[in-house]
Amino acid sequence: MIKAGIIGSTGYAGAEIVRLLLQHPETEIVWYGSRSYVDQNYAEIYRNMFELVDEKCLNDDMDELAERADVIFTATPQGLCASLVNENILSSSKIIDLSADFRLKRTDVYEKWYKRTHEAPHYIKEAVYGLCEVNRDKIRNARIIANPGCYTTTSILTLYPLVKDGLIDTDTIIIDAKSGTSGAGRGAKLPNLFCEVNESIKPYGVATHRHTPEIEEQLSYAAGLNYEGGESILINFTPHLVPMNRGILATCYAKLADGVTAADIAGSYERQYGSEYFIRLLGEGVFPETRWVEGSNFVDIGWTVDERTNRLIACGALDNLVKGAAGQAVQNMNILFGLEENTGLKLVPVFP
Amino acid sequence: MIKAGIIGSTGYAGAEIVRLLLQHPETEIVWYGSRSYVDQNYAEIYRNMFELVDEKCLNDDMDELAERADVIFTATPQGLCASLVNENILSSSKIIDLSADFRLKRTDVYEKWYKRTHEAPHYIKEAVYGLCEVNRDKIRNARIIANPGCYTTTSILTLYPLVKDGLIDTDTIIIDAKSGTSGAGRGAKLPNLFCEVNESIKPYGVATHRHTPEIEEQLSYAAGLNYEGGESILINFTPHLVPMNRGILATCYAKLADGVTAADIAGSYERQYGSEYFIRLLGEGVFPETRWVEGSNFVDIGWTVDERTNRLIACGALDNLVKGAAGQAVQNMNILFGLEENTGLKLVPVFP
Amino acid sequence: MIKAGIIGSTGYAGAEIVRLLLQHPETEIVWYGSRSYVDQNYAEIYRNMFELVDEKCLNDDMDELAERADVIFTATPQGLCASLVNENILSSSKIIDLSADFRLKRTDVYEKWYKRTHEAPHYIKEAVYGLCEVNRDKIRNARIIANPGCYTTTSILTLYPLVKDGLIDTDTIIIDAKSGTSGAGRGAKLPNLFCEVNESIKPYGVATHRHTPEIEEQLSYAAGLNYEGGESILINFTPHLVPMNRGILATCYAKLADGVTAADIAGSYERQYGSEYFIRLLGEGVFPETRWVEGSNFVDIGWTVDERTNRLIACGALDNLVKGAAGQAVQNMNILFGLEENTGLKLVPVFP
Amino acid sequence: MIKAGIIGSTGYAGAEIVRLLLQHPETEIVWYGSRSYVDQNYAEIYRNMFELVDEKCLNDDMDELAERADVIFTATPQGLCASLVNENILSSSKIIDLSADFRLKRTDVYEKWYKRTHEAPHYIKEAVYGLCEVNRDKIRNARIIANPGCYTTTSILTLYPLVKDGLIDTDTIIIDAKSGTSGAGRGAKLPNLFCEVNESIKPYGVATHRHTPEIEEQLSYAAGLNYEGGESILINFTPHLVPMNRGILATCYAKLADGVTAADIAGSYERQYGSEYFIRLLGEGVFPETRWVEGSNFVDIGWTVDERTNRLIACGALDNLVKGAAGQAVQNMNILFGLEENTGLKLVPVFP
Repeated sequence: MIKAGIIGSTGYAGAEIVRLLLQHPETEIVWYGSRSYVDQNYAEIYRNMFELVDEKCLNDDMDELAERADVIFTATPQGLCASLVNENILSSSKIIDLSADFRLKRTDVYEKWYKRTHEAPHYIKEAVYGLCEVNRDKIRNARIIANPGCYTTTSILTLYPLVKDGLIDTDTIIIDAKSGTSGAGRGAKLPNLFCEVNESIKPYGVATHRHTPEIEEQLSYAAGLNYEGGESILINFTPHLVPMNRGILATCYAKLADGVTAADIAGSYERQYGSEYFIRLLGEGVFPETRWVEGSNFVDIGWTVDERTNRLIACGALDNLVKGAAGQAVQNMNILFGLEENTGLKLVPVFP
Repeated sequence: MIKAGIIGSTGYAGAEIVRLLLQHPETEIVWYGSRSYVDQNYAEIYRNMFELVDEKCLNDDMDELAERADVIFTATPQGLCASLVNENILSSSKIIDLSADFRLKRTDVYEKWYKRTHEAPHYIKEAVYGLCEVNRDKIRNARIIANPGCYTTTSILTLYPLVKDGLIDTDTIIIDAKSGTSGAGRGAKLPNLFCEVNESIKPYGVATHRHTPEIEEQLSYAAGLNYEGGESILINFTPHLVPMNRGILATCYAKLADGVTAADIAGSYERQYGSEYFIRLLGEGVFPETRWVEGSNFVDIGWTVDERTNRLIACGALDNLVKGAAGQAVQNMNILFGLEENTGLKLVPVFP
Repeated sequence: MIKAGIIGSTGYAGAEIVRLLLQHPETEIVWYGSRSYVDQNYAEIYRNMFELVDEKCLNDDMDELAERADVIFTATPQGLCASLVNENILSSSKIIDLSADFRLKRTDVYEKWYKRTHEAPHYIKEAVYGLCEVNRDKIRNARIIANPGCYTTTSILTLYPLVKDGLIDTDTIIIDAKSGTSGAGRGAKLPNLFCEVNESIKPYGVATHRHTPEIEEQLSYAAGLNYEGGESILINFTPHLVPMNRGILATCYAKLADGVTAADIAGSYERQYGSEYFIRLLGEGVFPETRWVEGSNFVDIGWTVDERTNRLIACGALDNLVKGAAGQAVQNMNILFGLEENTGLKLVPVFP
Repeated sequence: MIKAGIIGSTGYAGAEIVRLLLQHPETEIVWYGSRSYVDQNYAEIYRNMFELVDEKCLNDDMDELAERADVIFTATPQGLCASLVNENILSSSKIIDLSADFRLKRTDVYEKWYKRTHEAPHYIKEAVYGLCEVNRDKIRNARIIANPGCYTTTSILTLYPLVKDGLIDTDTIIIDAKSGTSGAGRGAKLPNLFCEVNESIKPYGVATHRHTPEIEEQLSYAAGLNYEGGESILINFTPHLVPMNRGILATCYAKLADGVTAADIAGSYERQYGSEYFIRLLGEGVFPETRWVEGSNFVDIGWTVDERTNRLIACGALDNLVKGAAGQAVQNMNILFGLEENTGLKLVPVFP
């Protein structure tokens, strides 16, 4: 049994890791970390876990945790993982970080968008961006996995094959994304109150959202650009808050490269994802809806070509707490420990 | 592997049976019945099943189905199961009926509340009311299981121990229940449109809802009354429609019998349910919320005694599609086939 | 023009007073009080008011406010109004208090349920309980109006005629109420987050909710009891939180008194409310839904008699922010200032 | 008093016209048309209207209606208005058509997108596109007003000044729009059921939605193109369904024309809309949310310039049933009959 510790187990993403690991046949949770609820029963914070979890919340003593655990999930605010990680920890435990600390390879970009100094820049290079379907091979031997963001997983997976195959004009990429409210976390903030979110939709972080450079970096790699040398695709990314608990939909627009046909698009997706368990290609003209992936680790992708404007419109959908956070983290764990990649993750989407 | 057929697999309850059986280690679905969608791909009707189910919908030829299946789930409108069942079918297959056809032992009561003639009264006697925690022993050898209704499972389980132990005045029972909208089914009816249900709560079927006699009958058995001889507890049952997908909450009121204390209540619940996997006793003063059981087969029960009025207020909560329908049906199947009762049903509640 | 000041104008109830007064032909708002947002533009706190309100939020200096205003609405936490009111203020301004400070005539009851000492007990006697349809005549000349709570308005209006006419057994009254989330206020509290409220229903304050004694007191008056002398009806009142913004539904149960018929019930409602503008009698067998009153000052009432159990089930529905708070406050203002009672309140319910 | 008739008064848009006209000081409704509910009480179809409307639904005899009414609102399916209109009707009554029958000047475009033959092409030329803030002067003397669609009103008003002033590259316009569910109408269709819409977001009509040519035509006029001669802007327009009742948000993207600055954008909006009552310019960097306009006739517009990509992102929000349908229809009526344009429409947005 893999021994797993979770720092930040009482946030929504952390709690989802708990849900998934409880149903995982090869894992045991040995540490329910939660700075806010130390010594309280986990099942009193998340009463869905009543009689399923009989543990108290622990603090975030990562050194002690590393001794007990084979893998540590950090579902924590920006900066925490970077401030705690060290060789001692890494010598005994793998780290799967759900924050953005190790997602960006360029610290200048990190510091510009996150407006903070990076506290462990020396670990950036070795950290592997844990987008499983793309970086599977590198993940296998990593010590630190930078688990991708929810918006970014959706956006990158939707566009990756097309950028890689040069089928779209990368100067014209626009991603208009919509997210359920669990993505905003469990903090008691006025904008996340029921009456503020319900019966409304709003854009936020327009032209400034932190997932933008993460998407740009990965798509730049797909395009073969020398990203660390300064080359980069630039996109527009606009997130919106939707009155629902879970789900992300990314509607992506780009001009087709010269001469590209719908068949080229279909072929590109098929080559890249045809044998992926967690990516479901709906095909041309069939578009995803977040309800069809809820509770599961699937990403559904559909697309069309608008011949009037010569643009591709491609949509990806996933559950932001599963494939967009905890599910992908567990998928990374499976890869790290040599398990079948979908172990414990063959969750059938819940509908309605 | 148990071979299972589902008649009515494209309703919400039927689709939930599909979801549960796909994750059940000992079952194989051999028949996706759906009168409305014959010959259509199941995964086009329920796109959450894309790449998980690669079957077409079949008609409701129960005789042919019985040859192929060890167990038949009928998630169909009232009357259908009764009109189809016969010895030939029963000789080769168990039937778990999610409709009300075999729930009531008295045909006069059935016909009064359902306003239809019963088409198979000769099977009523042998059919076992599939409330697993109460009728487990009888279920084991039954041929026909009458799977309880969603409101009734919640209501009966919440009050059963107290009635059995004579702790409450059965003349004073009032059940005020609230249900998510999936209980109304997938029919295209105006009152179930999003804009009609959203941002509103309403009572319906006040003093006339068909689950009333089902609750009365089972509580009468608990009280030791000669129900078939005409004795019966009479209750008030008022369902309400809540703008959410899943979940039932039953708020139950009754006067305490003379001298009964809170400790008596606690003891009664503990004796009856202390070792039940699917019933979680939250205890005195802690009340259930439907979100804590969503997606799972749990029933959560909490209660208090109001000393000012000498009344008990007890609440039960469950997921209407799981423990209130498909989950209990699978639990019944597990009992019928000698499996551990929670096989395939150890689903951790999904939150948020 | 009546000059109105609002203390607590940035809570949901206070903001609803703003909405109503902006559409009221005889009123001008002269003071947007908000302790939390002093000196901030009101329209930045409530952006629906952009270009409609061009004022900054002021503190809660009630003395200065009283000089400027003819009427002061206090939409504030318990205790604030009682701590500020004095003769100087009352000599120049009417007070309509939306908190519970002056709703209960017995300070012992107030202190037991609210667990605080009353700071202005000498004003309790003269304060008038502002349930307009019941206390209209007393309201006219009051200096302090205790504006009723949202649950209580619904509950009392639904049962008042029947209790007054002796048609129900007052020992058997049970009120099971359901409320939208705006009733919980605009405070940034975890239980009110979107993901905590959405897709769930829960009871709260079971047997302990503070609106209980308010309902009991008013129904005791209706029954002709010597409430202040210690006589009181005792009821069970159970509130539930519903995932919607607005609306309250109270489902009320009681045994009929001997010999009472449905015609008696109908007659009682008709006599008491037949000419009331804001009370709509749906009649026997037709039940209210909160969506039909949203945004308006209406109370809809429907009922039935269950002859099997000899119980009445009566339901009332209103918009908790309008008739349950701001609308009734404005209705009280209209009475106080000799206007037509529905001035500025002939709002057509918004649906969907 | 203006005498108004409504054909299609029991759809959501028709019912919203009823709500608005009931609160309009200069109008009287003389005809509640509804083919589906002939002879039924209007207040039984829309119970929010109980005691407010005491009329029965009438058929769609437009000739008789024209004799009684000064203005006819047709809130009907495509084709109905075109099939009924004639000189006799137009000689005695104005027509404000909420369908698409007279919105497009080119019948070939109409027939391509709507896939039906136009039944009254001879009236297309004189019909005026009722986008009040743009076509006010032409509306004044029209006989037939083609009331704009909900998506189109939002989209066009958001981009109109910028296209007119040549500030954006019209080859790069992408509109990603999100709508509440009332836009789908009150038909009993499976995709609009509560459980199908709730907890999900989906795109639909991708690259094929009928509002596309309507937006293109009006923006082409703004750009000074010879639209009827074959010149046209081509855009991408992608609508999405959001689990809320009301509201439309249009997120619009375009490359800035050479040398255009944020100040140019601000100036353009200010010149075009600075004195418009119903358009609220939130300014640079402040984005609209649908909750801030709910129930009102306002359009809120906010925008930013992303200097990294040289793109404008501009968002417009409105209530699809008010400014997107009934409110704009009443605004058109006000113009037609020489009233102040905001008569009966100074509705304060309802929040929460």
